[in-house]
Amino acid sequence: MNMTTSPLPDLAAVEAAAARLAGQAVETPLLESHDLNARAGGRVFIKPETLQRTGSFKFRGAFNKISQIPRDAKGGVVAFSSGNHAQGVAAAAQIRGLPAVIVMPSDAPAMKIANTRAYGAEVILYDRHREDREQIGARLAAERGAVLVRPYDDPDVIAGQGTIGLEIARQCKAKGVAPEIVLCPAGGGGLIAGCATALTTLLPEVKIYAAEPAGFDDTARSLAAHKRVSNEPGKSTICDALMAATPGELTFAINDRLLAGGFAVSDQDVQTAMAYAFGRLKLVIEPGGAVALAAALAGKIGLRGRTAVVVCSGGNVDPATFCAAIGASG
Amino acid sequence: MNMTTSPLPDLAAVEAAAARLAGQAVETPLLESHDLNARAGGRVFIKPETLQRTGSFKFRGAFNKISQIPRDAKGGVVAFSSGNHAQGVAAAAQIRGLPAVIVMPSDAPAMKIANTRAYGAEVILYDRHREDREQIGARLAAERGAVLVRPYDDPDVIAGQGTIGLEIARQCKAKGVAPEIVLCPAGGGGLIAGCATALTTLLPEVKIYAAEPAGFDDTARSLAAHKRVSNEPGKSTICDALMAATPGELTFAINDRLLAGGFAVSDQDVQTAMAYAFGRLKLVIEPGGAVALAAALAGKIGLRGRTAVVVCSGGNVDPATFCAAIGASG
Repeated sequence: MNMTTSPLPDLAAVEAAAARLAGQAVETPLLESHDLNARAGGRVFIKPETLQRTGSFKFRGAFNKISQIPRDAKGGVVAFSSGNHAQGVAAAAQIRGLPAVIVMPSDAPAMKIANTRAYGAEVILYDRHREDREQIGARLAAERGAVLVRPYDDPDVIAGQGTIGLEIARQCKAKGVAPEIVLCPAGGGGLIAGCATALTTLLPEVKIYAAEPAGFDDTARSLAAHKRVSNEPGKSTICDALMAATPGELTFAINDRLLAGGFAVSDQDVQTAMAYAFGRLKLVIEPGGAVALAAALAGKIGLRGRTAVVVCSGGNVDPATFCAAIGASG
Repeated sequence: MNMTTSPLPDLAAVEAAAARLAGQAVETPLLESHDLNARAGGRVFIKPETLQRTGSFKFRGAFNKISQIPRDAKGGVVAFSSGNHAQGVAAAAQIRGLPAVIVMPSDAPAMKIANTRAYGAEVILYDRHREDREQIGARLAAERGAVLVRPYDDPDVIAGQGTIGLEIARQCKAKGVAPEIVLCPAGGGGLIAGCATALTTLLPEVKIYAAEPAGFDDTARSLAAHKRVSNEPGKSTICDALMAATPGELTFAINDRLLAGGFAVSDQDVQTAMAYAFGRLKLVIEPGGAVALAAALAGKIGLRGRTAVVVCSGGNVDPATFCAAIGASG
């Protein structure tokens, strides 16, 4: 029963993560919009992790992991990431004074690469179509004696992301509301696994759904099949943050047990949600961060008369991508 | 000592407004950004009224005024506004079931005109260069037996905007911080007059500064002269919300007593602030709503080692204007 050796985090692990993150991460607010409520016919709260340090939820898991690495670990940390985990790891390593090397796809958004470097990390670009980022990351970790900080399949990373679920439960209680539905983006599944760990313990009645881009709905299909299935290769999406091919082992072990299902949204749904967030919520949301809002707006689940929380997981988007979205449907 | 007949609102009037607004207005959060803190070398909190109902602070004053009009007032309400007061009045009137007619400049942002109509108001456009909106508003009010809801020179409107100051004081206390500086946009001066009414009573040490567009810094110059002076005609700015020619009579009576001074920012400063808010804060801020942030980022006041609150007053901006700003300096 020693929690530190347990492969899957529990509520206590999430609470321990929250204690480590205090004063470092932002406690993001729980926002309510009269316009969104009217549109949904219910109460729909937004949890804007766009407002988190580094512009996405990823700082939480990264800092929870990296703050437990001894400060004299000369090898520092290594990570592979499409961009948000990269920034989270780089910022967390910088706070702890640890060197960081981050493996990023060469076609990652320019803002994500620039920000990762600005947090003091060494960035190594790779070709997403021809190279294996996990192999590159493992090799660099071995060469440098660095700790590999996985983007989702790590109990400490999952527990860190779970602090969002903790905050949602506490903030809902403070507002006197009991959410029936939580919609949350899923890539590798760490964010939603952490949130579900906290939420299903604190709010046993809540139903939690994954939102994913069409063609990358491996979590939804894996949940339906009760086994990990991969996305077909060759698909594309504007959601650069959500292109993991297969659910994580640890994350799926949690999600298979705790989630109610998943929804896939089109790139057009995502752009519509980004434009809505610009026009009505006044929030900058990146494509991958907007999939849960897209699922809500596209009517993937009935929200009439219900109380729901929608996690908007990140806002790191290049101006051109953003303006294409808000011009296209704004 | 009957407060309802007092020409200038006091803290009690602001507290009464807060009671009327409860459940109708959004209590906007007080946000903190590690990036902004690092850049300023101090602690700089953002009060994002962009997240307010109708996308700007104007709903607060409008609802405080309009909720006191009898529901059977058949003539409804009339207002003149460049767009944010228009939306606030239209939404408040809709909630109360009162007809609203709004006089708006024909060159107001398309989003502001569309939203005002979407809240059920009748919109009458006028030529900003050749017609007098106050005359049109007064004539319409007389013709229709409607209540004219002035954009700033009304004690109830000022008291409603003052609820932002009340929230700032309470939210700072909850965070255990005492702000030394508050930077706030000023057009006619209602927002900052209301905020100053609450803040200088609750936090007597705080210094409150107006931020204005260059060429429209009538409040700053009036404060320096201790009398109301007007802007020179013929100037232009991208800050469509802040083009009032002269401080209000009531608002200046308050502001002359309570403000520490004012700063003018260029359109370029404003675009830089909008781009910064997009890239780092992940907030959509309209030009006029970004002047206080622009003053902070442009170093108009030293923030090193200080604790400050920056009011971002609105986010109703057309995609083209927004994308020009974030592309130009993002």
